[in-house]
Amino acid sequence: KGPSGSGAGCRMVELSDTRRASVENFKGKILVSVREYYQDKASGEMKPGFKGLSMNTDQWKVLHDNADTINEAVQTG
Amino acid sequence: KGPSGSGAGCRMVELSDTRRASVENFKGKILVSVREYYQDKASGEMKPGFKGLSMNTDQWKVLHDNADTINEAVQTG
Repeated sequence: KGPSGSGAGCRMVELSDTRRASVENFKGKILVSVREYYQDKASGEMKPGFKGLSMNTDQWKVLHDNADTINEAVQTG
Repeated sequence: KGPSGSGAGCRMVELSDTRRASVENFKGKILVSVREYYQDKASGEMKPGFKGLSMNTDQWKVLHDNADTINEAVQTG
């Protein structure tokens, strides 16, 4: 798992087979999304599902800046 | 914005007024959640809403390990 190829205005990181973090440019606003994907039966393509959240860059920055706090909490359970 | 006090088995990082990252111990499984919260009108408490995603520690680790890739994408738009 890790970063994958960049499409038009969109970069993906696969968190699992069905979960992706992506960076999107939505009408000039940069969004960092963490989202569940599902395979469309008709086309076989992976499509974004309902479950997930799009963060603006400020929210992503807070998350990133506090990653150590989260890691600590993860380690201590 | 930043980390806030730890409750019983739960640590919070406020991403915005209505968005929080939290680390929860759910039946012995550690989950990192990024979730939207809303104020319950009756009690005035902030409660977790529907929008969001809970990552297991593997998924969180991939996200964290690829934070630089995401930051790059954010900066280049």
